[in-house]
Amino acid sequence: VSDPTSEGATVDVVGVGNALVDVLSLTADEFLDEHGLTKGAMALIDADQAERLYAAMGPGTEVSGGSAANTMVGVASLGGTSGFVGRVRDDTLGRVFAHDIRASGVRFDTAAASAGHPTGRCLILVTPDAERTLNTFLGAASELGVDDVSEALVRGAQVTYLEGYLFDQPDAKEAFRHAAKLAHAAGRRVALSLSDTFCVERHHSDFLALVEHEVDILFGNDAEIRALYRVNRLDDAFGLVTRHCELAALTRGADGSVVVTPEGIHDVDVHPVAGPVVDTTGAGDQYAAGFLFAFTHGLDPVTCGRVGAVAASEVIAHLGARPERPLAELAAPLLP
Amino acid sequence: VSDPTSEGATVDVVGVGNALVDVLSLTADEFLDEHGLTKGAMALIDADQAERLYAAMGPGTEVSGGSAANTMVGVASLGGTSGFVGRVRDDTLGRVFAHDIRASGVRFDTAAASAGHPTGRCLILVTPDAERTLNTFLGAASELGVDDVSEALVRGAQVTYLEGYLFDQPDAKEAFRHAAKLAHAAGRRVALSLSDTFCVERHHSDFLALVEHEVDILFGNDAEIRALYRVNRLDDAFGLVTRHCELAALTRGADGSVVVTPEGIHDVDVHPVAGPVVDTTGAGDQYAAGFLFAFTHGLDPVTCGRVGAVAASEVIAHLGARPERPLAELAAPLLP
Repeated sequence: VSDPTSEGATVDVVGVGNALVDVLSLTADEFLDEHGLTKGAMALIDADQAERLYAAMGPGTEVSGGSAANTMVGVASLGGTSGFVGRVRDDTLGRVFAHDIRASGVRFDTAAASAGHPTGRCLILVTPDAERTLNTFLGAASELGVDDVSEALVRGAQVTYLEGYLFDQPDAKEAFRHAAKLAHAAGRRVALSLSDTFCVERHHSDFLALVEHEVDILFGNDAEIRALYRVNRLDDAFGLVTRHCELAALTRGADGSVVVTPEGIHDVDVHPVAGPVVDTTGAGDQYAAGFLFAFTHGLDPVTCGRVGAVAASEVIAHLGARPERPLAELAAPLLP
Repeated sequence: VSDPTSEGATVDVVGVGNALVDVLSLTADEFLDEHGLTKGAMALIDADQAERLYAAMGPGTEVSGGSAANTMVGVASLGGTSGFVGRVRDDTLGRVFAHDIRASGVRFDTAAASAGHPTGRCLILVTPDAERTLNTFLGAASELGVDDVSEALVRGAQVTYLEGYLFDQPDAKEAFRHAAKLAHAAGRRVALSLSDTFCVERHHSDFLALVEHEVDILFGNDAEIRALYRVNRLDDAFGLVTRHCELAALTRGADGSVVVTPEGIHDVDVHPVAGPVVDTTGAGDQYAAGFLFAFTHGLDPVTCGRVGAVAASEVIAHLGARPERPLAELAAPLLP
């Protein structure tokens, strides 16, 4: 596929998002009830709430996370090139985040803050049904601003991928719009992940304006896309999304995904998981990674969805949102 | 079983060992070769070596570790009571270690150091054969001394469990001997894990003297016990160990374990693993946990070995040395 988006590009995808370290803990459903947590959602918490919840929760496993950061790691694991823009502090968790994303092959140059909030973390409670409930203390990630966006990186990326969670912070939202304008000015594409139903509802008109004017490729799950268009049935969103976006990839958990293109609507099945589904954290992030890797390598939209399904299948088989095995090997049968 | 060891005991087992946070990374065999690492062994590294190896290794997963600490968490996961003695610094990793062991139900009161080395960490490279290669920067753990050993905790424990790795530090070795004497003075039992072949060889005469005079229950794998007695065949060690210890439990990887008692020698099979074997880190630690839990609950030595095998089977199915699922549920069919 010959495409002006890819001409002279230095990387396949650059992600802009929250730089977070995840603290994952397997827990009983009762724990969510006792602490008033909404299963499957992302709640923002402050430093005191984070201390209290950490003290109450079980033993943790720490793995670098952040939605768009996970996606960039997935792109690299598939053999693609990617970069990440996000803010950490110069503390222990910040060093862990920076080590892990660079060791995964992702370009990461955002300067660590030498003052201000500590590196952000996400306390993730995984229930026996493998559902994850996110409690995010953004910390230094909340201070991401326009100045942190590397113009050269964004201008050189075939696709700039934006994480919807950033809409919870005014400065980050500006950074986000800035990155989208830079990308389009360079003739590149902009992708957005809606991230979370409640996040979409909190910033509904801003999300809708962004999707209408700046988004070429939209990612979201069933509930998020319905929240965006305020429709009850997923089918009712298809017509609306095709007016605004070139492509949309809508995930439906165990029911697979739907890829919406100007030429039609395509169902894509889930990829079988090796062993039990342990933790769905990062399933959407890795789906986006597979989709964007395939897209930036000239593959058709349905194959993009299938590569996304393969990537998601790896990450739900273990604790943590980043692949433990090279995705390139798993996806090889689908790639040219 | 009526036994003076258990009279008036406040906990089943107390462990004395290195307080470490593990940084696990899946890696290729070539990485071990390039960095001159001996597969399956534990190497002590200093702060500079730790920085260099961390910079070179792939993305990590952080999970609290430490051999005896893992065993105490396993005892608690089986429904037993346990305590741990080990030294961290008052830094981020120290808080992670303390949170995780307490959240696992283990009593942990050793004061965090407010100066000196940072909290210790173990850089663990897991190869595709699921073998783990350990590179330990002891940090604050190396400063464990006699004063850190809680006399009340040791005197109240049915069994005091000592980690052989501590023999690499003179002060810790003293703390170790002190704990053994306290335990025996209170009429309790002392257990020892040999930990590592190279560690046994480094401190051969000290280990032999301790086993002869202070150890009631000995844990080790095939290679470690042969290194201790300087024999070529495991069978040749059985007669020697029965002269010194009441019980010995010798693990043989996929070939199961051998329980050596005054009445005879018993083979115990491995317990089947749910799914692929991912990471053998902590297999020996959890075997010891199962054995000690069963022993302190009055079960016969062969059942002790079987509960050990069940506990080990859980931890080798995922990254990290501590159980992710309650061991009590898995072991229930073997328990009264």
